[in-house]
Amino acid sequence: MAYFDAASAAPLHPVARQALLAALDEGWADPARLYREGRRARLLLDAAREAAAEAVGCRPDELSFTASGTRAVHTGVAGALAGRRRVGRHLIVSAVEHSSVLLSAEAHEADGGTLTQVPVDRAGRVSAASYAEALRPDTALACLQSANHEVGTEQPVAEVAEVCRAAGVPLLVDAAQSLGWGPVEGPWSLLTASAHKWGGPSGVGLLVVRKGVRFAAPGPADERESGRAPGFENIPAIVAAAASLRAVRAEAAAESARLRELTERIRARVPRLVPDVEVVGDPVRRLPGVVTFSCLYVDGETLLHALDGEGFSVSSGSSCTSSTLTPSHVLKAMGVLSEGNVRVSLPPGTPEEDVERFLAVLPGAVAAVREKLGAPAAQPEGAARPAERVVDALGKRCPLPVIELAKIIGEVPVGGTVRVLADDEAARLDIPAWCEMRGQEYVGEEPARAGVAYVVRRVS
Amino acid sequence: MAYFDAASAAPLHPVARQALLAALDEGWADPARLYREGRRARLLLDAAREAAAEAVGCRPDELSFTASGTRAVHTGVAGALAGRRRVGRHLIVSAVEHSSVLLSAEAHEADGGTLTQVPVDRAGRVSAASYAEALRPDTALACLQSANHEVGTEQPVAEVAEVCRAAGVPLLVDAAQSLGWGPVEGPWSLLTASAHKWGGPSGVGLLVVRKGVRFAAPGPADERESGRAPGFENIPAIVAAAASLRAVRAEAAAESARLRELTERIRARVPRLVPDVEVVGDPVRRLPGVVTFSCLYVDGETLLHALDGEGFSVSSGSSCTSSTLTPSHVLKAMGVLSEGNVRVSLPPGTPEEDVERFLAVLPGAVAAVREKLGAPAAQPEGAARPAERVVDALGKRCPLPVIELAKIIGEVPVGGTVRVLADDEAARLDIPAWCEMRGQEYVGEEPARAGVAYVVRRVS
Repeated sequence: MAYFDAASAAPLHPVARQALLAALDEGWADPARLYREGRRARLLLDAAREAAAEAVGCRPDELSFTASGTRAVHTGVAGALAGRRRVGRHLIVSAVEHSSVLLSAEAHEADGGTLTQVPVDRAGRVSAASYAEALRPDTALACLQSANHEVGTEQPVAEVAEVCRAAGVPLLVDAAQSLGWGPVEGPWSLLTASAHKWGGPSGVGLLVVRKGVRFAAPGPADERESGRAPGFENIPAIVAAAASLRAVRAEAAAESARLRELTERIRARVPRLVPDVEVVGDPVRRLPGVVTFSCLYVDGETLLHALDGEGFSVSSGSSCTSSTLTPSHVLKAMGVLSEGNVRVSLPPGTPEEDVERFLAVLPGAVAAVREKLGAPAAQPEGAARPAERVVDALGKRCPLPVIELAKIIGEVPVGGTVRVLADDEAARLDIPAWCEMRGQEYVGEEPARAGVAYVVRRVS
Repeated sequence: MAYFDAASAAPLHPVARQALLAALDEGWADPARLYREGRRARLLLDAAREAAAEAVGCRPDELSFTASGTRAVHTGVAGALAGRRRVGRHLIVSAVEHSSVLLSAEAHEADGGTLTQVPVDRAGRVSAASYAEALRPDTALACLQSANHEVGTEQPVAEVAEVCRAAGVPLLVDAAQSLGWGPVEGPWSLLTASAHKWGGPSGVGLLVVRKGVRFAAPGPADERESGRAPGFENIPAIVAAAASLRAVRAEAAAESARLRELTERIRARVPRLVPDVEVVGDPVRRLPGVVTFSCLYVDGETLLHALDGEGFSVSSGSSCTSSTLTPSHVLKAMGVLSEGNVRVSLPPGTPEEDVERFLAVLPGAVAAVREKLGAPAAQPEGAARPAERVVDALGKRCPLPVIELAKIIGEVPVGGTVRVLADDEAARLDIPAWCEMRGQEYVGEEPARAGVAYVVRRVS
């Protein structure tokens, strides 16, 4: 049994558990009350705020505890936009932000605001120059994650923050994936995070708004948490969140080196162990515990089930997972393969043996899925080969259109083309990605009577 | 040591604690994930939703877990108003709702909506007829608490719900104070509640939206909790909330009878033990554990400190508490005395001895505060008595203006008047209330060079 999905939620850190238990007895009362139980709750809340602020590198009165990281993002984005409404209504986000940021941006657009999505390179990284280009006189806010949640790529936050500061635009940093490893550098203006990503309990997010940043919290007024997080404070969970943040920070240097070595093994060995795999994300500037790869001709959900059966809990940004039928917006923005996608995110303390066992089990699991789906084993060489072939993959879900393409490409001569008719949205991403991996030429897409025709020219 | 402020937050129920501990190990993962830890979390979440729905008397898919009762109210009010925007933008609330409802109403007004506040009688109770009168063709939503949080008065929710149903208007019931005692009767449309009021943990609210009620959740989209509560679900706390709701319900019949007897003792004996006290709230249709009274010539905050020193944690809706300088909107709407206000709200399990000790300690505590403030002991009868006297209480805080008035009233002849010059907002409420208690005539208020002149005629 190995849980490799810490980027979704980390198991509760022992320190968090201990602090939570203690605070259940001491911190249940209303900290706004003047009697003994209220004063005790207030002391705990104040101490937790100081500890969290120290870890973030901000003043305690700049930090509010929210009910989740998502709430911190929703409130942070809406509050900063409202606070600078007189300047304008232009918002900048990167194309690979967490859904809470992108959905906040969508809500802003639906409300009449304007939006620029900054693109990323094939490693999933933005450049400070792209942010500089995107800035306008009416830009109210820019958002950038500290590191990507799906592929682990670290963003140049300090540089982007400098660019924004020079333009007088506040930068909101979603630090959900990185805060447990260290503070965010650079002159950022707002910061959000989520305790259950660093081993704290569910139910606690952080929203930091630097002094001097114009901010108008959305929704009805409420006096708690500087008016930025309405409702009764969840003090036991807040205490546990702050205590575990301190604890993981104390272990961060040693543990990040150890996890980095383990994910490096996966990065290096998976392509050797499993054919037709693309490891995605920046190979160097990346989170210690995250590694992501995509397997051609594989259905992500089936592979997840197979790995679950072997005792491994991983997630997938593949279009084939049950919860979502469109491919991961992150992989799409990077222009990399989305099919058969697997994200391994190791929680602190992951034993080396678990990683070794994963590497032992993975090749068989992938092979079994491919066999079940009838994936091509080798490129057959035929005799009579028409110069153009059509594959009708209408109604077929990822990864079947790519499997059909791969089966037939060897049947056209070099220079000939294959037209793949498909109506699954993932094909738009995966067919070009397959071409890049296979050294074939992706000609482009054309409208078809039903679905879309993706045209591929055989080059080799 | 006796904690008598359960209406703010109840201490954690032993069942909640036990369930929370178990769910910390089983329910920390993302319930949207397909692997074992995710499926386990999903099972816990589903079971908690079923248990809570059963206690509420709704379908599980009508119930969302929010991060607090306040959040449930904010989302419920905003979502119902947005869902019926085409019908109109008129909102009805009672004058004695919780601040989360009133502040939602304020936000609605600030956004261009219209509002009707339904008045209450001297017991703090609305009538169904007042709601019927307030309903208009453009009414989008009506809100009513199941019972008042400051004085314990139960509202005629079932009757008001019938009136609203007949008019085709949804009724949102804030059941925060009563859900632990039993389900809310009548054809209500939306319901909100807060787990830490029934002994569940902080961090969990309930929002119920009946099928067929038009609802458009505010803020950015999010797929969790039917789109009504964004962010990662706090499953351990949710499990504890549901388990403790079941547990308190199982004990509700016996415990409510026991607490009702204890609060009845306080209602009956405080006026006999302490002179110049007004017990407020409905004497019969009331919550089992809540009793509220106001003491003339007493500063609420000082009395709270005195009682805290004797080991009793109570709260006050008095204008003299540090957190707010305006008198409680509830006491104001009822037209009762706000000075020296004390709310006793007994948590389930409160021992009889604690109540007896409170009754033993209270008279001395009140007398000490009165002595410190120089309150009148008896009405002095003078010789030469001018027919009009002026008391300059400008710059003096509650309860000093009333104390000055009481000291001087005996110095004017029957039929004569006293003009009290005051600039503390509480005087507007407390001087008429004093007149009612003392059998003197409150003539009215007049503008004065500074502050307001409150005119009182001596009748007896």
